Amino acid sequence: MRAVIAHTASALLIGNELLSGKVHESNLLELARTLRAIGVSLRRVVMVPDEPELIGREVRDQSQTFDVVFTSGGVGPTHDDVTIESIARAFGVPANIDPTMEALLRNAYGERTTDGHLRMALVPEGAVLATTPEILWPTPVYRNIWILPGVPEIFRMKLAVVRAWVRGPEGFVSKAVFTKMDEADLKPLLDDVVRDHPEVDVGSYPKWFDPTYKTKITFDSRSGERVEAAVSSFLAKLPQGEPQRVE
Amino acid sequence: MRAVIAHTASALLIGNELLSGKVHESNLLELARTLRAIGVSLRRVVMVPDEPELIGREVRDQSQTFDVVFTSGGVGPTHDDVTIESIARAFGVPANIDPTMEALLRNAYGERTTDGHLRMALVPEGAVLATTPEILWPTPVYRNIWILPGVPEIFRMKLAVVRAWVRGPEGFVSKAVFTKMDEADLKPLLDDVVRDHPEVDVGSYPKWFDPTYKTKITFDSRSGERVEAAVSSFLAKLPQGEPQRVE
Repeated sequence: MRAVIAHTASALLIGNELLSGKVHESNLLELARTLRAIGVSLRRVVMVPDEPELIGREVRDQSQTFDVVFTSGGVGPTHDDVTIESIARAFGVPANIDPTMEALLRNAYGERTTDGHLRMALVPEGAVLATTPEILWPTPVYRNIWILPGVPEIFRMKLAVVRAWVRGPEGFVSKAVFTKMDEADLKPLLDDVVRDHPEVDVGSYPKWFDPTYKTKITFDSRSGERVEAAVSSFLAKLPQGEPQRVE
Repeated sequence: MRAVIAHTASALLIGNELLSGKVHESNLLELARTLRAIGVSLRRVVMVPDEPELIGREVRDQSQTFDVVFTSGGVGPTHDDVTIESIARAFGVPANIDPTMEALLRNAYGERTTDGHLRMALVPEGAVLATTPEILWPTPVYRNIWILPGVPEIFRMKLAVVRAWVRGPEGFVSKAVFTKMDEADLKPLLDDVVRDHPEVDVGSYPKWFDPTYKTKITFDSRSGERVEAAVSSFLAKLPQGEPQRVE
């Protein structure tokens, strides 16, 4: 495993239970925050059911479009765990039992080891295994696809492996300005800032029922100087009594 | 507006703030549960940034593939609210100010009405407006695309409009069996049930750190009889002392 420098990322969240509303998807927020912290831009997230063709088509598209791809879910031992085989089939390679992972499983389960357990050692042929000194159970990485589990407790642990091996070219800088103006009144001011600072990502988020502000304006860039310039030019346009605060 | 019978649905969640991890996406779970309750199968969810080309490509694909599509976000008055124009452009029609919505806005804002406010009356040409007696602010529906706001409080209100106008061909029936067996041991039993009951969707979900059970097995179908048959055949295969409970 070698360290990966990635500008862009995508995620594929797999599982019928997410789409039926039975389970509240909770891995994405953790992944998004982790990528943000290491300076990688998450550009697309897709949620699909446990169906090999849908998984395969999406993972192939994402692998071609983004620097790094993260899948979540479908890696357990049962019939509805089809992620590994789907990825392998999408790239025309077999899924094989990895001997390192098989040894770890046999060590854990001893004579109780079943074919079901060994399914958890399947990887697409050609995958490398990512570990850290603290997290010894390997994470399979096939091409640029990081294959992560869906169980939230384990997914969160695996993000430590991602942080150890993946990072962006430089970090992000963010500032937020809170005002009591409404979005429609802010629009002409914001249009000027957006035009004059094309490399700063400016967002506008109305908040309902908050007594301290009405609209939050965010400024994001990989350059701290550019963020400061955009914030200053925006603040200079605000009427007296604004902003409520800057963070 | 006429009532819509839909088998399948998809969702497009729009917003940079979702992908950067700044905001926890919270509309999807409510939408998924609503669709489930009215018997519509949610098949795909995609999250994209506030970029017209990405929004347009995805919404066109989804509109062709699924019976009904729901978008969330990007319908306010500011520069980063590009959903309406993106949908219009994707289908080669203009976005126009709707006179009904313009009248509502002018009524609310009076002489304070700005061009910014009026942007909230834009709809793709050919859209119809969905309302209920309780929710008078219209929801634009262009072709099979329901254009919903991103602000969670308003999104939730709009789901009442969806429930009033959209329903599936018949409802879903679900049962869940909780066991203390692990997934690898359950696998051969489940494989038999899945083979014998191909029209029941069988899911297996391990739970970590719960003292009352280890794996939850779910059975879903549009037919209650089929669910009962699959559950009975599964229960008959379980060893003594199982299941922990059935819900």
